Amino acid sequence: MIIKLKRNPKEEEVENLRRWIEGRGIEVMTSVGANITILGLVGDTTKLDIDLLKTMSIVEDVKRIQEPYKAVNRRFHPEDTVITLEDGTKIGGDNFTMIAGPCSVESEEQVIEIARRVKNAGANILRGGAFKPRTSPYSFQGMGTDGLELLLKAKKETGLPIVSEVMDASQLQYFKDVDILQVGARNMQNFHLLKEVGKLDKPVLLKRGLSATYEEWLMSAEYIMSGGNKNVILCERGIRTFETKTRNTLDISAIPVLKSETHLPIIADPSHATGTRRLVEPLAKAAVAAGAHGVMIEVHNNPEGALCDGPQSLDPEQFDGIAEKLKKLRKTIEEIG
Amino acid sequence: MIIKLKRNPKEEEVENLRRWIEGRGIEVMTSVGANITILGLVGDTTKLDIDLLKTMSIVEDVKRIQEPYKAVNRRFHPEDTVITLEDGTKIGGDNFTMIAGPCSVESEEQVIEIARRVKNAGANILRGGAFKPRTSPYSFQGMGTDGLELLLKAKKETGLPIVSEVMDASQLQYFKDVDILQVGARNMQNFHLLKEVGKLDKPVLLKRGLSATYEEWLMSAEYIMSGGNKNVILCERGIRTFETKTRNTLDISAIPVLKSETHLPIIADPSHATGTRRLVEPLAKAAVAAGAHGVMIEVHNNPEGALCDGPQSLDPEQFDGIAEKLKKLRKTIEEIG
Amino acid sequence: MIIKLKRNPKEEEVENLRRWIEGRGIEVMTSVGANITILGLVGDTTKLDIDLLKTMSIVEDVKRIQEPYKAVNRRFHPEDTVITLEDGTKIGGDNFTMIAGPCSVESEEQVIEIARRVKNAGANILRGGAFKPRTSPYSFQGMGTDGLELLLKAKKETGLPIVSEVMDASQLQYFKDVDILQVGARNMQNFHLLKEVGKLDKPVLLKRGLSATYEEWLMSAEYIMSGGNKNVILCERGIRTFETKTRNTLDISAIPVLKSETHLPIIADPSHATGTRRLVEPLAKAAVAAGAHGVMIEVHNNPEGALCDGPQSLDPEQFDGIAEKLKKLRKTIEEIG
Amino acid sequence: MIIKLKRNPKEEEVENLRRWIEGRGIEVMTSVGANITILGLVGDTTKLDIDLLKTMSIVEDVKRIQEPYKAVNRRFHPEDTVITLEDGTKIGGDNFTMIAGPCSVESEEQVIEIARRVKNAGANILRGGAFKPRTSPYSFQGMGTDGLELLLKAKKETGLPIVSEVMDASQLQYFKDVDILQVGARNMQNFHLLKEVGKLDKPVLLKRGLSATYEEWLMSAEYIMSGGNKNVILCERGIRTFETKTRNTLDISAIPVLKSETHLPIIADPSHATGTRRLVEPLAKAAVAAGAHGVMIEVHNNPEGALCDGPQSLDPEQFDGIAEKLKKLRKTIEEIG
Repeated sequence: MIIKLKRNPKEEEVENLRRWIEGRGIEVMTSVGANITILGLVGDTTKLDIDLLKTMSIVEDVKRIQEPYKAVNRRFHPEDTVITLEDGTKIGGDNFTMIAGPCSVESEEQVIEIARRVKNAGANILRGGAFKPRTSPYSFQGMGTDGLELLLKAKKETGLPIVSEVMDASQLQYFKDVDILQVGARNMQNFHLLKEVGKLDKPVLLKRGLSATYEEWLMSAEYIMSGGNKNVILCERGIRTFETKTRNTLDISAIPVLKSETHLPIIADPSHATGTRRLVEPLAKAAVAAGAHGVMIEVHNNPEGALCDGPQSLDPEQFDGIAEKLKKLRKTIEEIG
Repeated sequence: MIIKLKRNPKEEEVENLRRWIEGRGIEVMTSVGANITILGLVGDTTKLDIDLLKTMSIVEDVKRIQEPYKAVNRRFHPEDTVITLEDGTKIGGDNFTMIAGPCSVESEEQVIEIARRVKNAGANILRGGAFKPRTSPYSFQGMGTDGLELLLKAKKETGLPIVSEVMDASQLQYFKDVDILQVGARNMQNFHLLKEVGKLDKPVLLKRGLSATYEEWLMSAEYIMSGGNKNVILCERGIRTFETKTRNTLDISAIPVLKSETHLPIIADPSHATGTRRLVEPLAKAAVAAGAHGVMIEVHNNPEGALCDGPQSLDPEQFDGIAEKLKKLRKTIEEIG
Repeated sequence: MIIKLKRNPKEEEVENLRRWIEGRGIEVMTSVGANITILGLVGDTTKLDIDLLKTMSIVEDVKRIQEPYKAVNRRFHPEDTVITLEDGTKIGGDNFTMIAGPCSVESEEQVIEIARRVKNAGANILRGGAFKPRTSPYSFQGMGTDGLELLLKAKKETGLPIVSEVMDASQLQYFKDVDILQVGARNMQNFHLLKEVGKLDKPVLLKRGLSATYEEWLMSAEYIMSGGNKNVILCERGIRTFETKTRNTLDISAIPVLKSETHLPIIADPSHATGTRRLVEPLAKAAVAAGAHGVMIEVHNNPEGALCDGPQSLDPEQFDGIAEKLKKLRKTIEEIG
Repeated sequence: MIIKLKRNPKEEEVENLRRWIEGRGIEVMTSVGANITILGLVGDTTKLDIDLLKTMSIVEDVKRIQEPYKAVNRRFHPEDTVITLEDGTKIGGDNFTMIAGPCSVESEEQVIEIARRVKNAGANILRGGAFKPRTSPYSFQGMGTDGLELLLKAKKETGLPIVSEVMDASQLQYFKDVDILQVGARNMQNFHLLKEVGKLDKPVLLKRGLSATYEEWLMSAEYIMSGGNKNVILCERGIRTFETKTRNTLDISAIPVLKSETHLPIIADPSHATGTRRLVEPLAKAAVAAGAHGVMIEVHNNPEGALCDGPQSLDPEQFDGIAEKLKKLRKTIEEIG
């Protein structure tokens, strides 16, 4: 961390600041130039409150030189985190994970039919929304606990582990048998929820916020990990840009950058990233080529009648085709390195 | 609402779609051109699920012509909403509201001292954070319920109504004597929280999300109002842009645009919008000149030592000066119309 | 195009507007509802000035239903454009193009060495900057015409066609023997330059502006094509987002979306998109997987000493490795379809 | 400037780097910590190429501590720049400038009528577009040199100095009698044009680019000033954001921030910033309240028939009212300080 002091600071004040910082176990190096005095902080500055420093009267600016995250930081945990679900399914490292299923759970018939189809096509995990975050209070809000029941039936029927979104800590009680808790993009900085899921040891799939930076996203993962839960999966689902022909813009760079910054698994969701069925295949391929640990794809047995997010859902036959292609592509990527 | 159909749709399918829409009490006008068929929907399309429509096989695109919000819409409620607090303080309409206080409550001495000072300077409402949303789990998270206690003491001492942020529905039990519930920018689309505060009749100050559009913001207000709570105050607090010299970018246009779109009061928070003490005055003036119903300003009795957001806090003396200027400016604005 | 009229328009004015539009050979369909009157325009609205329509007193809003571009529109030109350079090199369609070379031309030795190396690795075209757009007037501005001379020597030496950026129409006189004119991101809406290159028949590589939408980008291509020059290549080079760990954000969706919207070739520039050497490989792979017609990659024989854009340049050996991988990946993509 | 070195750099390489920098007259302070080595550069780093530094093998990251601009920097020129036009009109400092006129010049009658009206209302300068940058090649491109002729007639008739946009350096020959050259938002980084207008001594009104940061904008002004032309006026005209209800988003913070960063005059253009007639008044007021040195407002004698940008133009009567209000508001702002 670099602290730039205001011009001509009083020596006494500089001394006080220096002692205050050193009292936190951090080494301070002072550089005095003609017009400028700079303090270089060396040590674990993760827990130093940058906002507090900025308030001090002799401080003009503070810049971080090192990342403010620690538990998620690959620098301190060079090995990939590999998460193992109850049934042995592994996420992260050299494993490639395909998560598929409907945006919203709508009926027993629907979810079981889709679960069977995506399992046959090679999916490892079933996704399905029971609690649905919707921009409008007048849109379908999901089946709630009934939807979770149906997902659990599909899990029992097919053996596929399940992932579903939890929108509020008060709903966690219903997720005991759900394998992976999804925290949605709009809740990425719902810090209360992050703290609560941080107390569990259930894997959490943390979606990136619509306009979140990598650092903010990693800090949200840090919230979960600092609570004790080591099982975090990051999911790039597209960011907001000025483009209107796609719902969001898949930030493909997130995959290689985050693989370097953190040891956590990172997957891509091309369905939400584009909002368009036709774009799911090219973007899923791009994610595989860029090194993603997996993809999450929406599949519906009757996309025409889906209660939400229909335009981006594939039917099971289309998913068969894409799953096949992704497996071949993944093989090439492994071969060429 | 305008529905553009795919090329050469089957007549039967068009007829089905038309009947389905008309069954919802909406009139459908069909325009058939050489290359294009368009359906124009006339009536209350607010409760029509635009996503569902887009899933239909014959639909190419759907565009709204009317706003998707109803309860917050000035078109249906031409009169300004004026909110009256228990002590008679009014917000909205022709009233001008000054909310001031510390970012975080830190001690009894601090909050009472500031409350007295800002009241003397003309503030109508005291702000103070007890539960603090922080990007890092390692930053100060607020005094919690103890903080609320201190705010209530300051209220008793000075008579000023208070506003404080609620981060999660589970905290609502502690806010019984708080006059206005603040929903923060990062929770603007925490739909569970919106629904819960929608069940109360306590005023809610709803901050705009960092990258939210006006429509999304108004839809979040609609969540609260559709739950029965009519007392919503909108607060523009700056949006995220590419600029890094300010923390956020105050969107001054939000004030006149929202005054036209909705009957709800709209105020501006120049402290969070800029993150810089020096910019609070010019931006507060701009907000007054643009017609804001009020401003919310951070004041700290010792900005050097504030535990959070210090760089943007004024000291009480600085606030005295600004409050005086804003009152004069407001008078000129009222005079010139 | 859909025109929403203001409430209760005068019949006479509606009739005037309708006649005015029909006089431009466009059919008008009127839909009158209880609260709203909508005109649906059917026909070639490309040349209708949407801004002019919005000025009319009875018009509340105008929305396009069809794209405002024509010459670049795949709807009217279903076949892929394939551009053939003088030496027979083809760009677009089923061809895969690798453009490589230094950011800036620095010396004869440098550019010839790199040209040889990238040709051996499989590159089809040599890139090199002679006129350099730099944010600061104090940064190296390129070798200018001397740089072009060196590029032409490298072309003569290796047979590789060359592409170089033209920053102003007054420089076009120096580009007679350059195979492809590059129009840079900051000049994407330099309409004078677009018109001037539109008068030539030399291929133009048009980079996307930092914050341009697909539509704006295609409209800039339309400027060139409407001038008579049919040989436009689009190049996605990353857009500005809030992320700071990468210089720009490669918008991978641009590739499949633009392949559907237009018949023009589209390539990706992972070097500028990321600004980081280490990210060039994963993003180049992603571009290939997403279906790009080619990639443009910066290669420097001594990245440590490059006068500009060094951090994103590969050395020839690294390029050898990537080129090899991209060719294998491209083969897999062709096989799996 | 702060240079963060890679881990465990070779001492010899550090020494080389240090000598290379010191050779440029800059003092280097080295701070060595357990895990990190930092070089602090003190002196005039404006002309140091940050990109070049980043290329060096031992460098991990470079951060600026001081601004990269010099000629425009208030730090080195504490006094406000005041620009005096031929007729004595002053811009900057304590002067308040009202620029008004049509978006496009359309006819002699139109431009003279408007010139008279805006002069009577108190405008100091007449604006009018002759060369028009338009997104579509099919939109009206302006009257060109004929338009300039008409502007000059209006200048002769009314005595108002004139400002008009130059889109390309090749057009500069026609601007000899134009008082202020406008460089448009899309040309803010047309470096060739900036260099050419930098060679003149005619005042330049430099609009901010649609997504430009303050620093980029100031660097473009630096291009002009470093060429020798000291007469630059900055014009905030709205930036691109996610909001669609306004054409652009007026960044009101730009005014106080730039008044602090630079000595150059800064004005606001509420017409282009919003694209909506009804929003011009509140935003012009906000700009005055925030301390702008002036405003630029579009006025049309028949907004219904304007060939471009009609929806944002006021008619002369509306401008009378606004001009009156702005003068009163400006008086209050001067009084309250």
